[in-house]
Amino acid sequence: MSTTQRAPVPRDRENDYTHEAAKTRREFLAEQTGTSLEHVSSYSFDPDLVQGNVEHFVGVSQVPIGIAGPLLVDGEHAKGEFYVPLATAEGTLVASYNRGMRLLHEAGGVKTTVMDDRMQRAPVFIFASAREARAFGEWLDEHFDDIKAAAETTTRSGKLLDIERYSAGRQLYTRFNYTTGDAAGQNMTGKATQAACHWILEQRTDIEHYLLEGAFATDKKSSQVNMLRTRGKRVVAEAVIPNALIESVMHASSELLFRARQVNNLGGFMAGVNNNGSHSANGITALFIATGQDAANVAESSAAFTYVELRENGDYYYSITIPALIVATYGGGTGLATQRECLELLGCYGAGKVRKFAEIVAATVLCGELSLGSAVVAEEWVHSHDLLGRNRPS
Amino acid sequence: MSTTQRAPVPRDRENDYTHEAAKTRREFLAEQTGTSLEHVSSYSFDPDLVQGNVEHFVGVSQVPIGIAGPLLVDGEHAKGEFYVPLATAEGTLVASYNRGMRLLHEAGGVKTTVMDDRMQRAPVFIFASAREARAFGEWLDEHFDDIKAAAETTTRSGKLLDIERYSAGRQLYTRFNYTTGDAAGQNMTGKATQAACHWILEQRTDIEHYLLEGAFATDKKSSQVNMLRTRGKRVVAEAVIPNALIESVMHASSELLFRARQVNNLGGFMAGVNNNGSHSANGITALFIATGQDAANVAESSAAFTYVELRENGDYYYSITIPALIVATYGGGTGLATQRECLELLGCYGAGKVRKFAEIVAATVLCGELSLGSAVVAEEWVHSHDLLGRNRPS
Amino acid sequence: MSTTQRAPVPRDRENDYTHEAAKTRREFLAEQTGTSLEHVSSYSFDPDLVQGNVEHFVGVSQVPIGIAGPLLVDGEHAKGEFYVPLATAEGTLVASYNRGMRLLHEAGGVKTTVMDDRMQRAPVFIFASAREARAFGEWLDEHFDDIKAAAETTTRSGKLLDIERYSAGRQLYTRFNYTTGDAAGQNMTGKATQAACHWILEQRTDIEHYLLEGAFATDKKSSQVNMLRTRGKRVVAEAVIPNALIESVMHASSELLFRARQVNNLGGFMAGVNNNGSHSANGITALFIATGQDAANVAESSAAFTYVELRENGDYYYSITIPALIVATYGGGTGLATQRECLELLGCYGAGKVRKFAEIVAATVLCGELSLGSAVVAEEWVHSHDLLGRNRPS
Amino acid sequence: MSTTQRAPVPRDRENDYTHEAAKTRREFLAEQTGTSLEHVSSYSFDPDLVQGNVEHFVGVSQVPIGIAGPLLVDGEHAKGEFYVPLATAEGTLVASYNRGMRLLHEAGGVKTTVMDDRMQRAPVFIFASAREARAFGEWLDEHFDDIKAAAETTTRSGKLLDIERYSAGRQLYTRFNYTTGDAAGQNMTGKATQAACHWILEQRTDIEHYLLEGAFATDKKSSQVNMLRTRGKRVVAEAVIPNALIESVMHASSELLFRARQVNNLGGFMAGVNNNGSHSANGITALFIATGQDAANVAESSAAFTYVELRENGDYYYSITIPALIVATYGGGTGLATQRECLELLGCYGAGKVRKFAEIVAATVLCGELSLGSAVVAEEWVHSHDLLGRNRPS
Repeated sequence: MSTTQRAPVPRDRENDYTHEAAKTRREFLAEQTGTSLEHVSSYSFDPDLVQGNVEHFVGVSQVPIGIAGPLLVDGEHAKGEFYVPLATAEGTLVASYNRGMRLLHEAGGVKTTVMDDRMQRAPVFIFASAREARAFGEWLDEHFDDIKAAAETTTRSGKLLDIERYSAGRQLYTRFNYTTGDAAGQNMTGKATQAACHWILEQRTDIEHYLLEGAFATDKKSSQVNMLRTRGKRVVAEAVIPNALIESVMHASSELLFRARQVNNLGGFMAGVNNNGSHSANGITALFIATGQDAANVAESSAAFTYVELRENGDYYYSITIPALIVATYGGGTGLATQRECLELLGCYGAGKVRKFAEIVAATVLCGELSLGSAVVAEEWVHSHDLLGRNRPS
Repeated sequence: MSTTQRAPVPRDRENDYTHEAAKTRREFLAEQTGTSLEHVSSYSFDPDLVQGNVEHFVGVSQVPIGIAGPLLVDGEHAKGEFYVPLATAEGTLVASYNRGMRLLHEAGGVKTTVMDDRMQRAPVFIFASAREARAFGEWLDEHFDDIKAAAETTTRSGKLLDIERYSAGRQLYTRFNYTTGDAAGQNMTGKATQAACHWILEQRTDIEHYLLEGAFATDKKSSQVNMLRTRGKRVVAEAVIPNALIESVMHASSELLFRARQVNNLGGFMAGVNNNGSHSANGITALFIATGQDAANVAESSAAFTYVELRENGDYYYSITIPALIVATYGGGTGLATQRECLELLGCYGAGKVRKFAEIVAATVLCGELSLGSAVVAEEWVHSHDLLGRNRPS
Repeated sequence: MSTTQRAPVPRDRENDYTHEAAKTRREFLAEQTGTSLEHVSSYSFDPDLVQGNVEHFVGVSQVPIGIAGPLLVDGEHAKGEFYVPLATAEGTLVASYNRGMRLLHEAGGVKTTVMDDRMQRAPVFIFASAREARAFGEWLDEHFDDIKAAAETTTRSGKLLDIERYSAGRQLYTRFNYTTGDAAGQNMTGKATQAACHWILEQRTDIEHYLLEGAFATDKKSSQVNMLRTRGKRVVAEAVIPNALIESVMHASSELLFRARQVNNLGGFMAGVNNNGSHSANGITALFIATGQDAANVAESSAAFTYVELRENGDYYYSITIPALIVATYGGGTGLATQRECLELLGCYGAGKVRKFAEIVAATVLCGELSLGSAVVAEEWVHSHDLLGRNRPS
Repeated sequence: MSTTQRAPVPRDRENDYTHEAAKTRREFLAEQTGTSLEHVSSYSFDPDLVQGNVEHFVGVSQVPIGIAGPLLVDGEHAKGEFYVPLATAEGTLVASYNRGMRLLHEAGGVKTTVMDDRMQRAPVFIFASAREARAFGEWLDEHFDDIKAAAETTTRSGKLLDIERYSAGRQLYTRFNYTTGDAAGQNMTGKATQAACHWILEQRTDIEHYLLEGAFATDKKSSQVNMLRTRGKRVVAEAVIPNALIESVMHASSELLFRARQVNNLGGFMAGVNNNGSHSANGITALFIATGQDAANVAESSAAFTYVELRENGDYYYSITIPALIVATYGGGTGLATQRECLELLGCYGAGKVRKFAEIVAATVLCGELSLGSAVVAEEWVHSHDLLGRNRPS
């Protein structure tokens, strides 16, 4: 189509992370498009800070932050009250999470547990036939210690836990599972697995092909395998909420909530959903953007399993399990200016904090589930009874 | 647990969207947590702007923006070259998309097509038994015009297209599908469907219960029903790339890419993935944050169908279909300071632009797929052949 | 490997459906393998009967039939009591269904409803690009009457209902949905759709390729699309069972059943199952083999949605929805000797009976679900309480 | 509804497995329904044989058996030529498999490999909160030897391999995986796991509830977890077929087949299918009915992963992986009269034969896939080119 000369984005080959370089690019864009990026140019840090985070830097997106809280957490790593920064432009989101936090605060807080912790890279190995693939699987078991040693030469904090295997045809798909300290670990596990694979390729001459990623880590995708086998943190948040509180704070009742949940569980199952809850992605995304997480991981982290019980005394037990919560308190965007401040606000910046942060995310999510769930029930279900003046039996 | 007095986040009941109110909250947080939000407080707009976007406003998350491009698009709405703002903290992301845009520019650009466009709200209706639910389904058909009229009283741009139905037990799950103009439309369709439901509830006395959301819209979740039946825009981006370009620009080949895709298609299918491509969520999320989209919709918008062909002359046909791309050029966060500038940079701010924007997103995604795919192949597959000095037959 | 001459199975080119031809083959097999098929040769009909049902006929598999019942059905087509023939070799299966039928008989019977009825063939059409595929989709709407006429030239009982469309890349996947009278209809819809496609191909010169089956009918496979959109009959069976009956007949309770169902619903959802119930495939398969249905369709027909309620008075509402029940009372194996007798036993042989039969299948399934569910609860859950002498709170 | 006296099926309490008892029931049915079961009564064995296989025995379903073959297998357990008995009433099924067997015979046979072998029972344990569930998971590891010992007290051939764990909320879902010798093993693993659970319940007082089946074994259902983690045998069948053979035997070509497969892989992926192949359930079901397998397991066994390659010389590599093939050569229906003969025909009756049988099933399936795939391509794709006289470019 267009035969005009392609005009690439200008770069300063000496040092591209300066106010000047950013300005040059903005001027170039103004020239090309007629649009000036005034607000985008209003950032409060030295561009040197974003080296390693972005290329062709021109400025920032300013995403509004609201504060919800206090969130009361009864975790193993997160204990006590937190004020949670949520970066979002969706009206009522902060208010809704805030309301849920008030409910759960009065109910005694949210109990949180990190059930598992594993980040993976998933190479696939291709052999002459299925038989060699099967033998290779056994060989991986026999040489696990060597493979682990090779992988761990590239990292101080990454530890190879195990190698899952899934066979099909002449392929052996694997998942190299690691703990990755306080980093999310996608890069760390990539390098470690590459090193492990090179060691493997030196030993085995019968591997016809290999790919570092055989689509079984499902990075930036939602998948059954990650929901079953965990990617990042598998975290549970749970609480028991007295019905009286649900009535006074939420203008709903545990019975209405429970009944609606039954109907929605079936709806979600039929719809083929990766999450039978309400909207965990809302809280997760807002927290991710505020704290420098990779928001593209919402693809994985939006999966959730909700399970509730209506107790005999009317109490409502509510749990949510996030099977693939990908978070970091070190590396990636966590050290950027505002992102670091938001992690610090939660007492979660830096080493040794990632499970604490994971617990806060899960507790936040639980509050949002109860809040939206109550709103739907209060406004709609009750509506059909009360406003329309009917008394329908169930 | 804690028995301390709960300290709620302070609000100014007169006007909470002022510099003062934000400052008061930051001071409160500093008192409570010892953390001061210096960078967060550095925003360049009047807080009045974020009314309707956030509650308990304290400042902003500054997310770095890099520019990739020019992206050459051969769409029905987007035509020509675009410089694409990507808000991200993931190093190499912008560079990778930029490289893919260079490849596709040289290949003549990306062809884009909006295949479908529908946003939904999904009420469920519960009857005495399945038989009444079935009859109600037929009644919906017979009264579609009235229902449509009731729904459209609440909106100028929303148009009710049809009502899908899914039955189970004594429930009838529905999907009220709308076009929503340039808004993403979740709120618009919520209000319209509520109005429609109230009209329905007035006519029918046999509805035992109803919920405005029966979990079939799968808002903020990934689902089969949305991948099949579309949520937001269903967009295809496609291109034919000569092998010579893949070799010169990407240091890979169409044959290697094709072979790797076969292996990854199977891997993804086994893994139960919502996307058999590479990493579309990366580009989508970065564009969403830059332009004021709701990044929580990455949960839905991360789904994708990739389909490729290795042509006889070595050309590589590559298509990606995004079945649930939720975008807006009006409403939500699109009018915020930096977000609006980024939309303007693309010529996509305001009315009549949403399909153009959807096409740009899809074209961007295609460039990223080819770039990462090539990188994996170039670095890994070739590596095993060349660096290790083996010449393995396939 | 083997270089021996390939010895094909002998056929009689004049008439292969005779006792002689069958005997010749059995002798051939005895020669080749040393195995004589004594019992297999003991069939009670003229081999001429199986023409059109099997090739290289040698005899029969004798599958034991047990009778469960009376099954009390409150359907629209099936009304009253039925004695249900179940062909199976799995011990306790008949007894278990029989027990469930007793429970439901005492509870007043099973209410059944056929919610939908559609069999499909799913051609895919491939175009130069997505844009032509989209235009073709609109063209299908505009020419629906002509397409329907072309399809229906090949069949008296098949009626084309609509053409669903699913786009990806430059492909347009379709589902041609038909009602098919009393036949299951896979062949009928195949021929009709082929005729329709030939008419289409005559009109359109822009179709690069077409396949009569684009994998969207998912014949002999389980799929989300069939669970959502129906294949064959979508049938609901439901009942309300007083707790007293559950206690006296099943030695369980509605509360225990309900609680176990909650836990299993979550388990099934996590496991990625096509059926959140217990074992509907057992009853369906046994009925299918007895009555000459195609048991390979258990792949589709095993899908199910279970939904239960624990009512305030302790009653247990139980419904099961079978979204892809593929049945016939005409054609296929329904006219074979024993198969026809079993259909006659149910009053379901021949024209105008297929919905009656579908209702009986669904009612049977419901009985089996309650029976196995109760057994698990009675033996295990209670066991852990009573036998082990603990009184655990829930 | 009906208030008539319920007339239960008559039983002989002394010995219900006699010609007399069967006849009494048939007479009862004739009285109740007016239908006489002449052909059903024509069975060739002593009813005593079906004790443990069926209750309320009245006779048999006579399912026609056709023979396909010779099937040439290059397995580790099955080696050489086999004549395969297929019990079916679907016309052309035997002919189609037979044709595929001819193709693969000429191509040198089907290579088969049993990749994994594990049958499971899946109890769920419920605790006060997620934290105790996590601790219990670790306890299972520490006490694996004791648990294994307890489980294996109930069986000679069952061996506990490992205990998989999947957590959600306060539940720990497990999968107790066993090898089960030549039996399918559902009952064996049920008893063994029950014994193991009783031992566990004696040790642990913190288990609030437990269910022997938490819906993670997905017996008689299709599921992602079984497709990923295997249920029964995971078997691969693969072959390389020269294009010349495909042309001469099938009137298709490797290129056409490959292209159609690409389109169908995408169709199946979008449709959310449990099998991206053609119709493996057809061959599996027919073999299951002939040989006394539990045909209800077609629900699980219908899952499959197809993977193909078009080699540079035009050869077509085709593999199919059946991840949950549930088969037995001992127990269940395998000892019945005709069923045993059919197993003997394959040299697969009795101890030590189950993997041989699994390989024969998988090889049969592969032949059917190529046959149907070729038919579709030959009749439809070529049709659109040749008959309609167009020469469309791809």
